[in-house]
Amino acid sequence: MSEQTMPNWLEQRAFLTPERIALVTEDETLTFSELQQRTKEMAARLSSIGIQRGEHIAVYAKSSVEMVQMIHALSYLGAVGVMLNTRLTIEELVFQVTDSSCSYIIGEDSYKGTIEEIEKQTEVQSLSFEELKDCQDSSIPMLEEVKMEAPYTILYTSGTTGSPKGVMLSYSNHWWSAVSSALNLGITEKDQWLAALPLFHVGGLSILMKSVIYGMPVHLHTSFDTEAVHDAIMNKGVTTVSVVSVMLDSLLDRLGSDHYPTNFRGMLLGGGPASEALLHKAKKKSVPVFQTYGMTETASQIVTLSPDYALDKIGSAGKPLFPAQLSIELDGKPTNAHEVGEIVVKGPMVTTGYYRRPETNEETIQQGWLRTGDLGYKDEDGFLYVVDRRKDLIISGGENIYPAEIEGVLSGLDQVKELGVVGKKDEKWGSVPVAFIVVRKGMTLTREDILAFSKERLASYKQPKEIYFVDHLPRNATNKLLRRELANWLKQRRNVQ
Amino acid sequence: MSEQTMPNWLEQRAFLTPERIALVTEDETLTFSELQQRTKEMAARLSSIGIQRGEHIAVYAKSSVEMVQMIHALSYLGAVGVMLNTRLTIEELVFQVTDSSCSYIIGEDSYKGTIEEIEKQTEVQSLSFEELKDCQDSSIPMLEEVKMEAPYTILYTSGTTGSPKGVMLSYSNHWWSAVSSALNLGITEKDQWLAALPLFHVGGLSILMKSVIYGMPVHLHTSFDTEAVHDAIMNKGVTTVSVVSVMLDSLLDRLGSDHYPTNFRGMLLGGGPASEALLHKAKKKSVPVFQTYGMTETASQIVTLSPDYALDKIGSAGKPLFPAQLSIELDGKPTNAHEVGEIVVKGPMVTTGYYRRPETNEETIQQGWLRTGDLGYKDEDGFLYVVDRRKDLIISGGENIYPAEIEGVLSGLDQVKELGVVGKKDEKWGSVPVAFIVVRKGMTLTREDILAFSKERLASYKQPKEIYFVDHLPRNATNKLLRRELANWLKQRRNVQ
Repeated sequence: MSEQTMPNWLEQRAFLTPERIALVTEDETLTFSELQQRTKEMAARLSSIGIQRGEHIAVYAKSSVEMVQMIHALSYLGAVGVMLNTRLTIEELVFQVTDSSCSYIIGEDSYKGTIEEIEKQTEVQSLSFEELKDCQDSSIPMLEEVKMEAPYTILYTSGTTGSPKGVMLSYSNHWWSAVSSALNLGITEKDQWLAALPLFHVGGLSILMKSVIYGMPVHLHTSFDTEAVHDAIMNKGVTTVSVVSVMLDSLLDRLGSDHYPTNFRGMLLGGGPASEALLHKAKKKSVPVFQTYGMTETASQIVTLSPDYALDKIGSAGKPLFPAQLSIELDGKPTNAHEVGEIVVKGPMVTTGYYRRPETNEETIQQGWLRTGDLGYKDEDGFLYVVDRRKDLIISGGENIYPAEIEGVLSGLDQVKELGVVGKKDEKWGSVPVAFIVVRKGMTLTREDILAFSKERLASYKQPKEIYFVDHLPRNATNKLLRRELANWLKQRRNVQ
Repeated sequence: MSEQTMPNWLEQRAFLTPERIALVTEDETLTFSELQQRTKEMAARLSSIGIQRGEHIAVYAKSSVEMVQMIHALSYLGAVGVMLNTRLTIEELVFQVTDSSCSYIIGEDSYKGTIEEIEKQTEVQSLSFEELKDCQDSSIPMLEEVKMEAPYTILYTSGTTGSPKGVMLSYSNHWWSAVSSALNLGITEKDQWLAALPLFHVGGLSILMKSVIYGMPVHLHTSFDTEAVHDAIMNKGVTTVSVVSVMLDSLLDRLGSDHYPTNFRGMLLGGGPASEALLHKAKKKSVPVFQTYGMTETASQIVTLSPDYALDKIGSAGKPLFPAQLSIELDGKPTNAHEVGEIVVKGPMVTTGYYRRPETNEETIQQGWLRTGDLGYKDEDGFLYVVDRRKDLIISGGENIYPAEIEGVLSGLDQVKELGVVGKKDEKWGSVPVAFIVVRKGMTLTREDILAFSKERLASYKQPKEIYFVDHLPRNATNKLLRRELANWLKQRRNVQ
């Protein structure tokens, strides 16, 4: 069997449907043909500075047309993009560009200082988008085909647990992710997807891949702004938005008693288990929510609740996408229905491994099956319910406590805007749950209110033993709760009233 | 790279969306769950008679639920289905089952006599569907995964030219065909595809693959009946129909001045170049027609006119599907726009080769590129126009004449129901075009009418030198015109008035 190839995606898309809209930003609207032209100019300049097939290039930018060009330009050169999180510290950036063997760090103009600092501290050369414009075009021919098994991007895991590792995603991984999602959600000519998640995160990046593979417009927002997203759905034809819980909650509040246009298809909800309270709130407002489960290692969603079951199986992340498989395992054996175990997945969108981590790869990926480190169970029909990250599990007097369960219950209190639960070391029990709560503006909520509410709904060992009222919670670039950071707050008593 | 696998398609589909409709026939409607149950029963019986992974099984049946079960049952066993054309003579059948190394021929009950005759003449064992029901269930476990590179079906080329060769199509070929079509046409929850083309033809078989991969109902018709297809579109929710020209023409006549329901998406038109007259007729009636180009060797369509260009590029077969590529070559070099040459295609849906034809494979498939033997050209935007089969080309006094061009012009005469043009040996010119014409009922048409009409529209060397009025034309199982057979008529003066 010969190595599988495919036409370069942007090249093919611009050939097939040149006049379709590719990108909509605050400032401009580009067709695939326009995007292709600009991208090839950028690729020619990258080629002129000597960037070659297989070379690792760090990309450091917020969502922008130039960032999109950069991602596609890499495919014309066969270079690999290491997508850096713009919220990282210099120390973290230095680690990632070194760990991933980058030769260049290319960043947006406003980050020039940062990338130059990284150049000083490493052997990596820096270049801003503006500086790149001054490079000469090269006449080196662009790659007309991509090799499906070749790596396209390296994304470091979001770091909600453990130390960052570079997840290698091939063209094949990204392709199968996009196609598998289409087989689940369908594709129509009217689809327009809004990306408010950053492009250096797999949740945002996967929308860009869908855009070029489906021939679909993407509305690119530099950051999540409730008003802007609301406006894009109401007035600009956006049919689908990828969100995490806190975004969805904010959008539902903004919607109030109004309704989205009939062409709105739904919210693709990822980034961790959602509370039932939130899902019911969406249901009440007739906002379709497609719950998903996925991670960087699976090139975004690998399990999704099909529209057929969106209302019947509320709270479930659904079933695997068509080419994927799901198993729940405990001590190496599949569990029975409703029995919690580790979520293990297989499919062509699953990473071939972490860059330069042979031992971790051997532990976590066996015969195509990826051990996710997440806990969950299947119901009798095979629907997945994600319980929690295994590393966030609180073991209290031998009992398993899932922080997400407590969070789910307490989020049922109207006064709670957001909350996070973590374990705190305890001499008697080993560990006990404590809660950090942000109260909605203009409302009041006391410890007593909370305990009275939770007493009725949670076993006594699950009751939060301490409650801290805070004005915000630590979240990563995709608004995912950082429980690790909450644990630090606890140690330092920082940010805590 | 490990061998790529996927969950068994029917198994996965029945797990993901058990209650969705899989099949609609005249007699019954089956969900994917029901189809799966029946299929696994059949697979267990096939297993009990000893059918094993990799074994070749000839299937000889018209479209029916049992035929569908048989095709899916093969996937549970990893056996390869040799799909026999039910119009073949005993001699042709004997050749195909022997040539393809079949161990069994399994056929529908009404063909019991034929398959027993084949058993007598070969070493192949015969079994009717009814006899299969008497076999015991085996408890041998079904294959939960399919190997993507393994062969799934062998279909003999329709034989419009040359001698029959068995085209091997893998799971991967069928998968990519279905997915690539979805990326072009989209997929919606409302889609229902009508299969009036036989399942032993790639045009019908590919609909079945789409059904299980998309989770889409297929309306299965045993043969093409204008009234039944019309009714299914008007009253039964059918959104898409795969047709060849003669079917489309008949359906348009039946439609009259009426209109299809708004949920009707379109006719997928394959099986050879369509006349502009027919396409204009469809346009006039607001019936969307998606012209396609494909063949058994490409697991059905590989080039399709995207809905975006259906009206602007009338007469074109479109552009390649997203993962595919197209080239027009003359003397081994790509031609310029509008220059006719051989159509050469590449993509993951292209067969790995003909069964036991190493020499032909070497000639026709080079580095993934398949030489189709068809003639065509691209316009300045890269749209394909299929001119004709290379073997049907009439060379007259050194001029190239494409029968399809003459057919296209003469079909503009209202009185012409159908027609076919072939070359006739000529001492002076080498070869000259002659036409066979079927006149519409109740209408009259003379040689003089035809020559007057063609004189205005065709160069003199393209004028038909002889005209035969006939009451039907020779067509294969998919209603494709058999020009080879027309040439025989000419020799034998058979069927000719």
